[in-house]
Amino acid sequence: MSVHSVTFDGAALAREAVRALRPSQIREVANAGLGRPDVLPFWFGESDRVTPAFIREAASAALADGATFYSHNLGIAPLRDEIAGYASALHGPTTAAQVAVTSAGVSALMLATQLVVGAGDRVVAVTPLWPNLVEIPKILGAEVQTVPLGYGPDGWALDLDRLLAALTPGTRLLLLNSPNNPTGWVMRREDQQAVLDHCRRLGIWILADEVYERLYYAGEGTACAPSFLDIARRDERVLCVNSFSKAWLMTGWRLGWIVAPEAMMGELAKLVEYNTSCAPAFVQQAGVAALRDGEPVVRSLVGSLRESRDHLVRALSALPRVQVSAPPGAMYLFFRLPGAEHSLDLCKRLVSEAGLGLAPGSAFGPEGEGFVRWCYACDPARLDEGVRRLAAWLGA
Amino acid sequence: MSVHSVTFDGAALAREAVRALRPSQIREVANAGLGRPDVLPFWFGESDRVTPAFIREAASAALADGATFYSHNLGIAPLRDEIAGYASALHGPTTAAQVAVTSAGVSALMLATQLVVGAGDRVVAVTPLWPNLVEIPKILGAEVQTVPLGYGPDGWALDLDRLLAALTPGTRLLLLNSPNNPTGWVMRREDQQAVLDHCRRLGIWILADEVYERLYYAGEGTACAPSFLDIARRDERVLCVNSFSKAWLMTGWRLGWIVAPEAMMGELAKLVEYNTSCAPAFVQQAGVAALRDGEPVVRSLVGSLRESRDHLVRALSALPRVQVSAPPGAMYLFFRLPGAEHSLDLCKRLVSEAGLGLAPGSAFGPEGEGFVRWCYACDPARLDEGVRRLAAWLGA
Repeated sequence: MSVHSVTFDGAALAREAVRALRPSQIREVANAGLGRPDVLPFWFGESDRVTPAFIREAASAALADGATFYSHNLGIAPLRDEIAGYASALHGPTTAAQVAVTSAGVSALMLATQLVVGAGDRVVAVTPLWPNLVEIPKILGAEVQTVPLGYGPDGWALDLDRLLAALTPGTRLLLLNSPNNPTGWVMRREDQQAVLDHCRRLGIWILADEVYERLYYAGEGTACAPSFLDIARRDERVLCVNSFSKAWLMTGWRLGWIVAPEAMMGELAKLVEYNTSCAPAFVQQAGVAALRDGEPVVRSLVGSLRESRDHLVRALSALPRVQVSAPPGAMYLFFRLPGAEHSLDLCKRLVSEAGLGLAPGSAFGPEGEGFVRWCYACDPARLDEGVRRLAAWLGA
Repeated sequence: MSVHSVTFDGAALAREAVRALRPSQIREVANAGLGRPDVLPFWFGESDRVTPAFIREAASAALADGATFYSHNLGIAPLRDEIAGYASALHGPTTAAQVAVTSAGVSALMLATQLVVGAGDRVVAVTPLWPNLVEIPKILGAEVQTVPLGYGPDGWALDLDRLLAALTPGTRLLLLNSPNNPTGWVMRREDQQAVLDHCRRLGIWILADEVYERLYYAGEGTACAPSFLDIARRDERVLCVNSFSKAWLMTGWRLGWIVAPEAMMGELAKLVEYNTSCAPAFVQQAGVAALRDGEPVVRSLVGSLRESRDHLVRALSALPRVQVSAPPGAMYLFFRLPGAEHSLDLCKRLVSEAGLGLAPGSAFGPEGEGFVRWCYACDPARLDEGVRRLAAWLGA
């Protein structure tokens, strides 16, 4: 009986597309350090500082005040207003009606992708890249083509012609993350403009993950990395994602946002309803406090990140056979180490043999092989101890 | 040039599958009451009580303690342990390794669906039903066939043969929500067993949304509605979703969980990573407090919900041309009203003409047409005022 062919077919299994998703190689390395409290971890993309007290207190005050009910799919009005004001100040006029609050930056990326990408669609991503951006479209059955950044003496750079050539007619979505995790690469304004012009001509959506926009070190007077919001109209095929995680030290809060055409907000509200329904109102109140009073925090954080970056670059440059340069954005050094041509193995060895926790370059796609990622969002003394361990391991 | 055919094609549009998703008719009715502070709302599925203080204080204590960092994709260990203990006590042995914490019950449903359902898959759902369950598979490109409950003098009932006939070979997933939103229907144990046996034979996954399991009124000594966890092994194709929203008065917190085969947890962790990454640690600490010390809250809540249900049934039964009976579960009456054959229109009229906010039956699928939903999770005086308004509007 044909029925029996599907009877007792063994283990309950997830569908193939899910089994094919990449598990986190960073977690694989971290697991190698389980039960080793002496390991110094620099593998995660997170500062070692707790969220500022005034932000935590805003959440606690909202809880005491009884903000424990459902809220609007697109976010509470005060937060949408604050985000619109913040985005307007940085990138030009943006209204609350063009803002959707989300339950994390990654949820924003999932929602934005669901909004425009379905099974069989062609998606292009510039890599090396945080794995989530590349894997999300695959959950929806899309195909992702990667376009690698090039690595040279001046660090990572985009081959614009190569990217434009990959953005063929019928391509549905371009995924960009600038400032980039893991490389620290920042897309140049003229390249953004060329890509926007090209995507306009072909009707290709741009999903810009700009969560590191404030972690930008290319000049004291520059508050922010170049953003697609600077050059795009608010009613075209551009979805810009941001998050409270990095600039306000709020990784664990899971609060992000999308700037999108107002005409899409009805569809986006439906998708929020079906994904998480809303972010907790008391978490959103913390977001209001962060935007209203957090600018000194952001500026001070960026200042100390710049110092940490320069400190780590100097220290690593003094080691033999270590190639490293100071990238203009984000909070990572992504650099070559002897043995990093098998970066996953190397990082496991560094954990067990040196007590040093780095992220393997291969975690960010095959283009990242040969590199390791070091998150420098911590104080210089801790970086020094990490460098000391690396130097000892290298026999330097 | 072919390129020009996709140039400037007008508005930026979401993909067709997203535009086809049902918007919330409840929200459409609620919008009709905007700027009408005198409207008495019974339309949302939410108690009017704030979360108990000891749960809110647990979150604030965790925030004060600095719990603002990323946490494990599947949840913090203390919460997975508490959930495992809670599920074990209600439904038999369940380990922490079979539990995934999620950012809301609806996120649990999205994750569970992503885990097993892809484009083109066939999904069966028993309706009337909370729209989210039916729409989520469509976001992933699946096709959903609905099997309606029947309505008779004894309330809503399942036609088991009709459901089994719909569960054909090749069906990927069955969606069940018992106790049911909106009808209050509770699936009988023997029907669960028959469905489980059938799905086992055909290799069909069961996704059981059991978030109302504690809101069950079929006997003082019964702590819980019949659950698939009572009869299923923990290593088979059963995914059970639950939430802190209803039983612990935590709707706005967005905290839920999935009990699933341990062998699926690696895949589930990847999907959590790509959807929300983790629930906030301080929200999870509140969940620990709720499970550890919240049983008196749950029992007291269920007692008062039962009183409210009986109170509202009595009051509505006294009205002419209103057909209503007391369902065994959840927190809604789903009943016929004159004019409810166009329930969306009727509910808008009730808002504007009577200041009464009910949810239209058609919001829960075409099978719900002819009915309205009244959430009775509030105190009897408020229910009385609602009934008074309805009676006046009916001319009773």
